[in-house]
Amino acid sequence: MNRESFAAGERLVSPAYVRQGCEARRSHEHLIRLLLEKGKCPEDGWDESTLELFLHELAIMDSNNFLGNCGVGEREGRVASALVARRHYRFIHGIGRSGDISAVQPKAAGSSLLNKITNSLVLDIIKLAGVHTVTNCFVVPMATGMSLTLCFLTLRHKRPKAKYIIWPRIDQKSCFKSMITAGFEPVVIENVLEGDELRTDLKAVEAKVQELGPDYVLCVHSTTSCFAPRVPDRLEELAVICANYGIPHIVNNAYGVQSSKCMHLIQQGARVGRIDAFVQSLDKNFMVPVGGAIIAGFNDSFIQEISKMYPGRASASPSLDVLITLLSLGSNGYKKLLKERKEMFSYLSTQLKKLSEGYGERLLHTPHNPISLAMTLKTLDKHCDKAVTQLGSMLFTRQVSGARVVPLGSVQTVSGYTFRGFMSHTNNYPCAYLNAASAIGMKTQDVDLFIKRLDKCLKTVRKEQNKESDVSGVGNYDKTADVDIEAMALKLDNVLLDTSQDSS
Amino acid sequence: MNRESFAAGERLVSPAYVRQGCEARRSHEHLIRLLLEKGKCPEDGWDESTLELFLHELAIMDSNNFLGNCGVGEREGRVASALVARRHYRFIHGIGRSGDISAVQPKAAGSSLLNKITNSLVLDIIKLAGVHTVTNCFVVPMATGMSLTLCFLTLRHKRPKAKYIIWPRIDQKSCFKSMITAGFEPVVIENVLEGDELRTDLKAVEAKVQELGPDYVLCVHSTTSCFAPRVPDRLEELAVICANYGIPHIVNNAYGVQSSKCMHLIQQGARVGRIDAFVQSLDKNFMVPVGGAIIAGFNDSFIQEISKMYPGRASASPSLDVLITLLSLGSNGYKKLLKERKEMFSYLSTQLKKLSEGYGERLLHTPHNPISLAMTLKTLDKHCDKAVTQLGSMLFTRQVSGARVVPLGSVQTVSGYTFRGFMSHTNNYPCAYLNAASAIGMKTQDVDLFIKRLDKCLKTVRKEQNKESDVSGVGNYDKTADVDIEAMALKLDNVLLDTSQDSS
Amino acid sequence: MNRESFAAGERLVSPAYVRQGCEARRSHEHLIRLLLEKGKCPEDGWDESTLELFLHELAIMDSNNFLGNCGVGEREGRVASALVARRHYRFIHGIGRSGDISAVQPKAAGSSLLNKITNSLVLDIIKLAGVHTVTNCFVVPMATGMSLTLCFLTLRHKRPKAKYIIWPRIDQKSCFKSMITAGFEPVVIENVLEGDELRTDLKAVEAKVQELGPDYVLCVHSTTSCFAPRVPDRLEELAVICANYGIPHIVNNAYGVQSSKCMHLIQQGARVGRIDAFVQSLDKNFMVPVGGAIIAGFNDSFIQEISKMYPGRASASPSLDVLITLLSLGSNGYKKLLKERKEMFSYLSTQLKKLSEGYGERLLHTPHNPISLAMTLKTLDKHCDKAVTQLGSMLFTRQVSGARVVPLGSVQTVSGYTFRGFMSHTNNYPCAYLNAASAIGMKTQDVDLFIKRLDKCLKTVRKEQNKESDVSGVGNYDKTADVDIEAMALKLDNVLLDTSQDSS
Amino acid sequence: MNRESFAAGERLVSPAYVRQGCEARRSHEHLIRLLLEKGKCPEDGWDESTLELFLHELAIMDSNNFLGNCGVGEREGRVASALVARRHYRFIHGIGRSGDISAVQPKAAGSSLLNKITNSLVLDIIKLAGVHTVTNCFVVPMATGMSLTLCFLTLRHKRPKAKYIIWPRIDQKSCFKSMITAGFEPVVIENVLEGDELRTDLKAVEAKVQELGPDYVLCVHSTTSCFAPRVPDRLEELAVICANYGIPHIVNNAYGVQSSKCMHLIQQGARVGRIDAFVQSLDKNFMVPVGGAIIAGFNDSFIQEISKMYPGRASASPSLDVLITLLSLGSNGYKKLLKERKEMFSYLSTQLKKLSEGYGERLLHTPHNPISLAMTLKTLDKHCDKAVTQLGSMLFTRQVSGARVVPLGSVQTVSGYTFRGFMSHTNNYPCAYLNAASAIGMKTQDVDLFIKRLDKCLKTVRKEQNKESDVSGVGNYDKTADVDIEAMALKLDNVLLDTSQDSS
Repeated sequence: MNRESFAAGERLVSPAYVRQGCEARRSHEHLIRLLLEKGKCPEDGWDESTLELFLHELAIMDSNNFLGNCGVGEREGRVASALVARRHYRFIHGIGRSGDISAVQPKAAGSSLLNKITNSLVLDIIKLAGVHTVTNCFVVPMATGMSLTLCFLTLRHKRPKAKYIIWPRIDQKSCFKSMITAGFEPVVIENVLEGDELRTDLKAVEAKVQELGPDYVLCVHSTTSCFAPRVPDRLEELAVICANYGIPHIVNNAYGVQSSKCMHLIQQGARVGRIDAFVQSLDKNFMVPVGGAIIAGFNDSFIQEISKMYPGRASASPSLDVLITLLSLGSNGYKKLLKERKEMFSYLSTQLKKLSEGYGERLLHTPHNPISLAMTLKTLDKHCDKAVTQLGSMLFTRQVSGARVVPLGSVQTVSGYTFRGFMSHTNNYPCAYLNAASAIGMKTQDVDLFIKRLDKCLKTVRKEQNKESDVSGVGNYDKTADVDIEAMALKLDNVLLDTSQDSS
Repeated sequence: MNRESFAAGERLVSPAYVRQGCEARRSHEHLIRLLLEKGKCPEDGWDESTLELFLHELAIMDSNNFLGNCGVGEREGRVASALVARRHYRFIHGIGRSGDISAVQPKAAGSSLLNKITNSLVLDIIKLAGVHTVTNCFVVPMATGMSLTLCFLTLRHKRPKAKYIIWPRIDQKSCFKSMITAGFEPVVIENVLEGDELRTDLKAVEAKVQELGPDYVLCVHSTTSCFAPRVPDRLEELAVICANYGIPHIVNNAYGVQSSKCMHLIQQGARVGRIDAFVQSLDKNFMVPVGGAIIAGFNDSFIQEISKMYPGRASASPSLDVLITLLSLGSNGYKKLLKERKEMFSYLSTQLKKLSEGYGERLLHTPHNPISLAMTLKTLDKHCDKAVTQLGSMLFTRQVSGARVVPLGSVQTVSGYTFRGFMSHTNNYPCAYLNAASAIGMKTQDVDLFIKRLDKCLKTVRKEQNKESDVSGVGNYDKTADVDIEAMALKLDNVLLDTSQDSS
Repeated sequence: MNRESFAAGERLVSPAYVRQGCEARRSHEHLIRLLLEKGKCPEDGWDESTLELFLHELAIMDSNNFLGNCGVGEREGRVASALVARRHYRFIHGIGRSGDISAVQPKAAGSSLLNKITNSLVLDIIKLAGVHTVTNCFVVPMATGMSLTLCFLTLRHKRPKAKYIIWPRIDQKSCFKSMITAGFEPVVIENVLEGDELRTDLKAVEAKVQELGPDYVLCVHSTTSCFAPRVPDRLEELAVICANYGIPHIVNNAYGVQSSKCMHLIQQGARVGRIDAFVQSLDKNFMVPVGGAIIAGFNDSFIQEISKMYPGRASASPSLDVLITLLSLGSNGYKKLLKERKEMFSYLSTQLKKLSEGYGERLLHTPHNPISLAMTLKTLDKHCDKAVTQLGSMLFTRQVSGARVVPLGSVQTVSGYTFRGFMSHTNNYPCAYLNAASAIGMKTQDVDLFIKRLDKCLKTVRKEQNKESDVSGVGNYDKTADVDIEAMALKLDNVLLDTSQDSS
Repeated sequence: MNRESFAAGERLVSPAYVRQGCEARRSHEHLIRLLLEKGKCPEDGWDESTLELFLHELAIMDSNNFLGNCGVGEREGRVASALVARRHYRFIHGIGRSGDISAVQPKAAGSSLLNKITNSLVLDIIKLAGVHTVTNCFVVPMATGMSLTLCFLTLRHKRPKAKYIIWPRIDQKSCFKSMITAGFEPVVIENVLEGDELRTDLKAVEAKVQELGPDYVLCVHSTTSCFAPRVPDRLEELAVICANYGIPHIVNNAYGVQSSKCMHLIQQGARVGRIDAFVQSLDKNFMVPVGGAIIAGFNDSFIQEISKMYPGRASASPSLDVLITLLSLGSNGYKKLLKERKEMFSYLSTQLKKLSEGYGERLLHTPHNPISLAMTLKTLDKHCDKAVTQLGSMLFTRQVSGARVVPLGSVQTVSGYTFRGFMSHTNNYPCAYLNAASAIGMKTQDVDLFIKRLDKCLKTVRKEQNKESDVSGVGNYDKTADVDIEAMALKLDNVLLDTSQDSS
């Protein structure tokens, strides 16, 4: 409503009241103006009213929402379904242009603003989360794996001889495939066991660089967030090696924004050595739907090069999600989530320790992993090799999601590469174990339910083991009320693998 | 509501009425069942009520919506903002798994079903649109360019020696960059002028294959939908060449699904020769927001290989959009849109012809292009080389979107390759011209407004030209009321280029 | 977004594009301004984008949406559920104040504007629909019956002696109860049969006025829209009688806005005689949910008196619905609906005539009723008195809604008054019949389905009658596939009555 | 989705996952079933997913949502605007039928269920809130005042001689008008001052009953929730008088559900004497939009009589709002809100006491009022009679809503009755004062902001008073920065009255 509208309004109802309403409007506008001028995440979250007003104002700046527009091109932002238009707040043109995913669209000033602001907000949050010297980043509507691929493809043009990527082993398929897809040969560096932890073998990395020749190495591809007992790579030392040999360094920081430790590693790596880009998932760090990632770095022009590598326009949906989320939370809200996550980690750790000891097991000592925990399953594994997988299946049918059981000796071939001890990040970990993680958004109730159900499952498995060892019979399998025996029978192993590898 | 709920309902209100309500529910369920069993697009569109019931039913099958779920993984589908959850109908887990974008997720049976059904529906529609023998396809949450890149990256693993991609020239940045990004060297085949049309130079293609050696050619990368006076490539003949030399053939069918001619070309090419995959945009063919594409083909296992190349999970958003759209329209609704588009093409053609002749110009004769038209701008260009760009700018400020003016002699460098006559698909087209297209969803009103505004703009430009030629003065530029002179002055050329290249 | 925000936007993306977006915004603002200044229904409907922007702008003028508000009263517009807030577009304060439902609320300038504008728009539409000299009206969140009660309660204060309301009989419960609820004694004037039509007995009305004495008569309560074979009351003549005797005249125009004939009667009545207020349903005339009515009249101060009679605030929901609807349709859209309704009436009439003659029945000749039609059920009734009710039940179970079968001789007592021949508006109509109406929003498909199903039902009933008359048996009742015999058996009469009286 | 759909789903994705999704669905269904079977508010609130599934399931039971429905009546639940349909979850038919607002609609089994369940839930909550022996209630889509009118109109039919309603004075317009609108003569009983409190004059009530004669008294109309220093009426004693004289007793419990004290008074009154019905606002007790009330009582048949008095159908909107709200909160959520309100009352009381003493004022001692507080404004009033109204205006412009300043000696005429000392519930209260209330949903932040702003305003007013008394000048009025002097000048008294009477 403009001045004339307010004047007309004053004639319909009392001027004093309309004036107050008009005044109230100004406070919404003030927040919007601050955002556009500063490009920073507001401290306090916006309420839905301001947020929707803002999105609405942006949307009407796009040509598909012009009242007098006539379109004679091949892409005019027309929408067949009102449901679809509505769920996208009428942003239809996506983000970016042919040449560059960060470029401005003439047809869509509103979407272009949305894109710029989102990237600006996300940059602000990355700094706040610990990487203070980051200089540029952008949201890309692809998951972490494909985003890593994009980084590698960009490096190809800078390093024409390179064929190899040096990669300290982490048993997660998509980061492995990101290299394959980009057309490079991963050089797997096995981890070393230090206490219970699996850590980067720095000597092996450096030896491999020398063996292959720096020019033939596209980059080192390291990882922060990972399942215990593996811990984040030694980023500082890797960054120094990269700097020394002039090799690019790409960090897979998938769900590391939520951990100050992971972010600190990146900050330190960049300070003392070389980190070219670090890639993080939107969904895992910002509680939005799957499908977006942030590519960030310390060198403005390299990040721009990557953004120019994405050919064509792209979905604005992940950007919109993270924008809504950050404006709703405010930086204070996000900080609160980070704090709560840390507390949940302690709580989960304590509870899992207690439980494990009750069963003659123990919590693996992995102080360098700030997110994931592992509890041994030695006694289970001892009696019967099916017992570990059975436990995984039972947890799944009891609606415990995200718990991973890792048996010994599983072998898997991915894109032609064979991994022994797959899922445990090493050929031969000393024992089977179970993983649980404290991720952003976790609640006390999650921990309590998990511990309760895990306890129940362990009891059941034990009882069955005892019976089997007593009578070594097949027929006398006790059908306890709440175990879906049929589901378990149904290709137990498959179900298990599906559940336990459930990470991208 | 289950049987017990209905029984309870019957005790609260009359059984006869509840029973009828229950009966009515069955008709919604019947539609859902048919969809799941047949996997085909329903003939008649569903109403919102059935559609939302269906989406709701799917969503509650995902673990993030389980009432009793406890999550202890690093990715549990938690959402911070209720607005975000709602706009995604609470589908948070995305689609695909680490290994494969078409794979089923244990944590998300509902999202997995959504993904399968969407792909099945889209396959049905591709057949209906003319490619009857297509065997497999999948929706990928990336725009056309990046999807082409994915195809090229997949081929790399099958053709280790290949370095080149043979590409009949089309002046559109993202399809050119799709090859660069994948790490290949585009081999540009200039088009030949036949009458007004620019057509594929088949001899040059074959000669280049022989010159480079088939093994060194990754694939031929051809195009259907394009701006006049370029016309769709000669797919049949290209497909035969590919078959003869054992070279893969990838077709960029960006906005071709909407044209029976483009689809027929693909069908014929596959029948007589070789087409490995054809890629189309979701937004341009299905009136959904930018951000998705369909990769389709005739060989099941090759399409699966591509889907397995995508590392990690992906956004379900584009799939959801196209699912909602197709279920709302039904196949009859989609066919109606196709029919209307064809009619609009005739109407636009007639109107543009009439207008152009009034100005001493003519409509270029491009019968092989079923979507885009071009009108000469000879008289404009003759007087003043700025006039053509000025026309583009004027149309832009008058909310005509998608019209492209193409001046003579523009030169552009893309990723190190220099294109003379950029935007005209050839080094030296005989005259400047203006493009307009009839795309799906266009309305009579779009055509009428466009013709009216174009007429007005041409009048204004002419008048100014006459004045200038009369007095050859600078100061007496007539400031007509509705021309934003300032905007025009402001780097006119840039604006023009921005507007006219506005295609991805 | 204010000027500073746009300036900041120009620094983020190109100024030319932002300026165009800003320009586009002005066209939305222009529509809003016109609405506020003129208070008339726009000719062309608004698109959702403008509509939601407008509602959003209004809502932020209410104190519950002030960012800095602190509430220390007993009613502060707080909302517990985000779903509820959202569905009301955050209008929480309702409309009106203690003293007057049309009054302005200091706490809610936006809701107050909404209320004023809605009433203004509705007045505009009433004029457009035929009552050109109406001077005032307001939307009240009560259905027609309760709104009539409010009119009678207002009149009570002006006519202290009055005890009676003269009411030409119409067999519809809520309008009868509206008088009882207000505490008056309805004086029923039986209709006279003219041809097939039941019309107002003017002589009886005048005689009754004289008999009771004008001062003891609160008002005449007449009706326009009604089920055939009753036709709208002779409003002109009634209005003249009222004027002559100084008796108020309240017209129940429940679903009459949709018919130019009904509106014309009111206009004429007011011109030649006296009409104090006419009341119409929102849902039946404007295709919104049940729950609102419009009280309109020709004397500004009397309509204000009624609005001041409503004690306390009221729901804004019906006002919001009709506002959204009218702004979406525009006056052109509403006129189109009126035109289509008229056409459907002709079509239904033709089809029903044809069908009835095929069964030896006929369409009653009721040219004065512009909405409802009646077809005789003589042959059905002849054989078996259950057959008529059975037909009603069969139509109900076949999802034909709104068809009323009217058997002979039904007697009903309402609030202590006994009506013979209830539902037929007269003690003894010559034959049983079936009603169908052409109401606003009806589609060809409704008519076709109705005719088809009615045909099928009549066939089935006939067949059963023949069998019964052949063998006069009970056991050989033929169980045809799609007739829910059980439901029919289940207190058929009750179901029938329920269905057929289904009007408020 | 039915069994066949799930089976089809199992063929598309893994059976184990579909089965788990199907299992998860059952937990939603279980909640719905419990609700329908028990008719009680669930202890724990439902999440949006279950809630929307439930509403969706109900809606598809209404004939307007039948896929195969054909409508030939005058009211078929057609909706012109998709926005409107959506915001009502496609419930279009409203609630009730011609005869009875609680009756079941044949065309709308879903809406009918919604209505029954809502009334059942609300009854459950009234019991929980303290009136354990309530037997029946219903939600009516009218505010408290009109609902009281409906009660009085119902009583009229049972007490033909009655002309008077005995009403212990409470200065709130709509409850006074509710009697006028119903056509009765209010007999005002002045309150007596006990300490600071204004309480029911029981002797005067009984004397008036005897004077008028019990048969001529329609009922006693008492009030619980009210502004301090008036306190809730002595319900027990009034109820006994009513029982003794055989006079009905209607209680205005406007915002009393939120207070256990008010509810206890009603429970006690009904136990020891006579209470026929008690009426409460939906918005003030359940944090929903304005527009609904609950009429409740202890005699099933009397409550039914009232519900049968409402002629015609009615809006389902208020019922839907309260249903959504209660299911979202659960009884535990509602209890928590009640508890928090009580705590806020203590907090507000403490803070206001402290503040008042700092200014030489005091908090009135009104222990019987559990919701509203009053602080004297003696020192303000002493100097200048405008100062009190100025304070009200200043609070209003500072976005303090709901605070009421009550000056001495204001006289107001409502519907012909003159009230001296209007707003203070008595002719001559000893001093001017300011009201603030702790209503459900109030937050600490509200109290803190209020105290802060009130402090600031008092300071400003004092300073101005001092200046004025110093120089007794008019011209040297100090224009402090944040006081909108102009607005104040603008009919200060009017604004003040508007703000301070702002209660319905």
